[in-house]
Amino acid sequence: MNRREMLKVGGAALVSTATNRMEGAQPSSHSSARVERWDLFEQSFSGPQGGNPFLDIWTRAVFRKGNREVSVDGFYDGNGTYKIRFMPDEPGMWSFVTDSNAAELKGKKGLFECTAAQGDNHGPVHVRDSYHFGYADGTPYFPFGTTCYAWVHQTEELQRQTIESLKTGPFNKIRMCIFPKWYQYNHGVPPRFPFPRNGEANDYTHFNVDFFRHIESCIQQLRAIHVEADLILFHPYDHWGFQAMPPDVDDRYLRYVIARFAAYRNVWWSLANEFDLMRKKTNADWDRYARIVTETDSYAHLRSIHYSHAPYDYSRVWCTHAGVQDYAFDKAAQWRMEWRKPVIFDECMYEGNINSRWGNLSGEEMTRRFWLCVVAGAYGGHGETYVSHDEIENDKAILWWSHGGTLKGSSPERIAFLRKLLEEIGAQGGGRIGFEATEPVYYLSARRNGNEAILWYFDFHQPSYYDFTLPENARFRAELVDPWEMTRKTMDGTFAGKSRISLPGKPYQAIIFHKI
Amino acid sequence: MNRREMLKVGGAALVSTATNRMEGAQPSSHSSARVERWDLFEQSFSGPQGGNPFLDIWTRAVFRKGNREVSVDGFYDGNGTYKIRFMPDEPGMWSFVTDSNAAELKGKKGLFECTAAQGDNHGPVHVRDSYHFGYADGTPYFPFGTTCYAWVHQTEELQRQTIESLKTGPFNKIRMCIFPKWYQYNHGVPPRFPFPRNGEANDYTHFNVDFFRHIESCIQQLRAIHVEADLILFHPYDHWGFQAMPPDVDDRYLRYVIARFAAYRNVWWSLANEFDLMRKKTNADWDRYARIVTETDSYAHLRSIHYSHAPYDYSRVWCTHAGVQDYAFDKAAQWRMEWRKPVIFDECMYEGNINSRWGNLSGEEMTRRFWLCVVAGAYGGHGETYVSHDEIENDKAILWWSHGGTLKGSSPERIAFLRKLLEEIGAQGGGRIGFEATEPVYYLSARRNGNEAILWYFDFHQPSYYDFTLPENARFRAELVDPWEMTRKTMDGTFAGKSRISLPGKPYQAIIFHKI
Repeated sequence: MNRREMLKVGGAALVSTATNRMEGAQPSSHSSARVERWDLFEQSFSGPQGGNPFLDIWTRAVFRKGNREVSVDGFYDGNGTYKIRFMPDEPGMWSFVTDSNAAELKGKKGLFECTAAQGDNHGPVHVRDSYHFGYADGTPYFPFGTTCYAWVHQTEELQRQTIESLKTGPFNKIRMCIFPKWYQYNHGVPPRFPFPRNGEANDYTHFNVDFFRHIESCIQQLRAIHVEADLILFHPYDHWGFQAMPPDVDDRYLRYVIARFAAYRNVWWSLANEFDLMRKKTNADWDRYARIVTETDSYAHLRSIHYSHAPYDYSRVWCTHAGVQDYAFDKAAQWRMEWRKPVIFDECMYEGNINSRWGNLSGEEMTRRFWLCVVAGAYGGHGETYVSHDEIENDKAILWWSHGGTLKGSSPERIAFLRKLLEEIGAQGGGRIGFEATEPVYYLSARRNGNEAILWYFDFHQPSYYDFTLPENARFRAELVDPWEMTRKTMDGTFAGKSRISLPGKPYQAIIFHKI
Repeated sequence: MNRREMLKVGGAALVSTATNRMEGAQPSSHSSARVERWDLFEQSFSGPQGGNPFLDIWTRAVFRKGNREVSVDGFYDGNGTYKIRFMPDEPGMWSFVTDSNAAELKGKKGLFECTAAQGDNHGPVHVRDSYHFGYADGTPYFPFGTTCYAWVHQTEELQRQTIESLKTGPFNKIRMCIFPKWYQYNHGVPPRFPFPRNGEANDYTHFNVDFFRHIESCIQQLRAIHVEADLILFHPYDHWGFQAMPPDVDDRYLRYVIARFAAYRNVWWSLANEFDLMRKKTNADWDRYARIVTETDSYAHLRSIHYSHAPYDYSRVWCTHAGVQDYAFDKAAQWRMEWRKPVIFDECMYEGNINSRWGNLSGEEMTRRFWLCVVAGAYGGHGETYVSHDEIENDKAILWWSHGGTLKGSSPERIAFLRKLLEEIGAQGGGRIGFEATEPVYYLSARRNGNEAILWYFDFHQPSYYDFTLPENARFRAELVDPWEMTRKTMDGTFAGKSRISLPGKPYQAIIFHKI
């Protein structure tokens, strides 16, 4: 134990760090770190350095509180260091005991105190009310996600910009790949690889711990700004072999990722971006990955998969929600019924101006799609693909969709407006939701904590008046909302039952009725 | 024969009227009227007035030229007058001889000269190149239709306005009902009924000839301004019993309509508006109507049927084209392949501001839909439903979609722009047509008379550049088209093969490549 390590153990009761290190075979029942509920507790151990620890040594720990037992896998972090990470979900004293096939990592014991969550720590996100999401502490979570597939593989400066953009932007979830990306506008060499490289070959028998540490630091930065990290575990846009690794490497990679990342509360698992484009993988492979993630992640983080052309069967039990690549928003109501799960239109094309169909929506259309998602009782997914002619000519294009950086489009501020509005009316739970084919509008009826609101969106319809059908047994006040101008105007009068209301005869307007 | 009638026969060689009257049993081999090719030749006969001529008497005539024989049914026009109408399709001398179950209408003979078509008389419209339309003289016809369901049942002044609007507007086809209409904004009493009325009952044993004469005058007015009359034979929006007449009355009505109207070159037959909403009718009824129209109309005018919810099987032989109520424009290419027929999106909702989903599209959306139709190798259908609050309060709303009148929307001038453009590039015939799902744009490749043009429409996509794939063996000049601003701008350079072109990064733009 070096001086720094000794200070850590010695100071455990004074400082709130949850990173501890235990020496050799010494029992550590005196470890008394504190960790906030849903924060990460980490315990380091020294262990074997000989042979290949990545292949030869396994570790795990059982965490106990009262009658509860939670088992988690540990992982090798290089230089003879083994780590166990754990996200406690209940305040109070927790104990743990390790197990391993290495004598010096076996039977290690420890204690820590889980303290109450502070500030904006609401815990991990789970499914709520069948079709929606909520944080573990009961706070509703409305996913307003964006996509920066390869942001963690960019320069430090660009990553800093990405975090800054996310901090001030409307997004509370980001889709991001673990493996680096090779695709149009993405032909650079990433700064780190997940495995040691021998020329063009990967040494699949070892992990490059720096690679995974770096991703951890990204997950931590996202956690600090309350952004969920929707981690994409496999994807087809590859140049280095990661899309076609041997099955045992795939599985070891998944277990390693889960052992390292699962204790971060803001992690979601997406088995793939466009799984159906990964020609080397079979349905049995995807089933196996799903089983590994489901069985190995002790916290039951959200799990899904994303397709290109072949819609996945999201009714399958392992999926917690659907993450579709589609823009058939009028199907959302039916999908919800069939799958009994939340539907996120993770990829409904991107705002931008590039040459590809999926990457050149106008800001108006992107905004419209978010509204269509919401009134369909589903959620949208943002992405942005703007390039300038200069960037193309100099082969230095920075596209938010892949690299991160700064947001240039006109939809993000409108998405922020919609998110604020939805969070205000608390549109989760029951009520009639979705498209009414015989009506000119789409609406969402939301009830929460005795509040009730009904949101109607008129899309490209522009009625000069409309006969709304409201509940008879309550009175409502009405607001006219302009999603593009981002204005809200209270209308005269109160309303109940069938109510004819004059409208501006302008497309893309919305009305919210608030129960008085 | 009265003085007026004598003047007619006497002046037949001098005046170009084709309306003749033959007295009693006198043979009329001296009749030497002239009639322009595809105009209407009419011969009147005096016949029985006793009994009920509508039920008791049948007449027909065989028209001959060389070895050709065309048989047409005559009809009773009231007051002892029977008429035979005929549209000659070949210049030269035609003879005819009548037949009837009434002695005085049997064996009448006559001659007339069919002269060359003049001016804008291009003949009737038929299907051309499987998926398109053309006039009989070879001129291409691009249907740009509108809908005024009940315009013929409005005041004289309103009808005058309608004709005036059509004369200056972009439309060359109008969907119109023969029977009056009862529906929202349509609760007035029509000025005429097709049958004599006894209180609330129709006398189905007689036709009200004034009713049909009036419709003829409307068809004639449309013909004069080169608008095709897409006559809707049945519809469900009824208050007087016409949607549920006895089968023999339905059939007699169809035969009467065909005998009277079929000789007008600008007539199309639409069996129904929203046939599937006519609950009293069975599939066998529709099959019978289709058979009657197909067998009785000697000119094979265009025939189709229009649905509400249940798509019709347009592959059926009697249909000449599909007239769909839909807005799934991306299905058009598949429908064309399956049905091997032209597809008209006759009703893809209307520009307007009323309370109904189908009647409150923005002008931008209506314009967009016409473009989507065209690049899908199909054709659009316009309608307009604007009301003011004043009109609603005074229950005096005049909506183009039903009453005609004046056009208020912003799409018609854009539709005119598109029609002109399409007529200019002559977009009929072969080539690749339709949506490319993997591309950001939709395009239509058109070849005619050695000309070749390719039209790309970007819809809500806004690429800042695009790699067009043009034929390698030709050079093209390019035009940037703004469908909303109605501007066309020639771009610098000429193009062949794969061509990267800078675009304005603005949605709803189009590009036309013209072969040099």
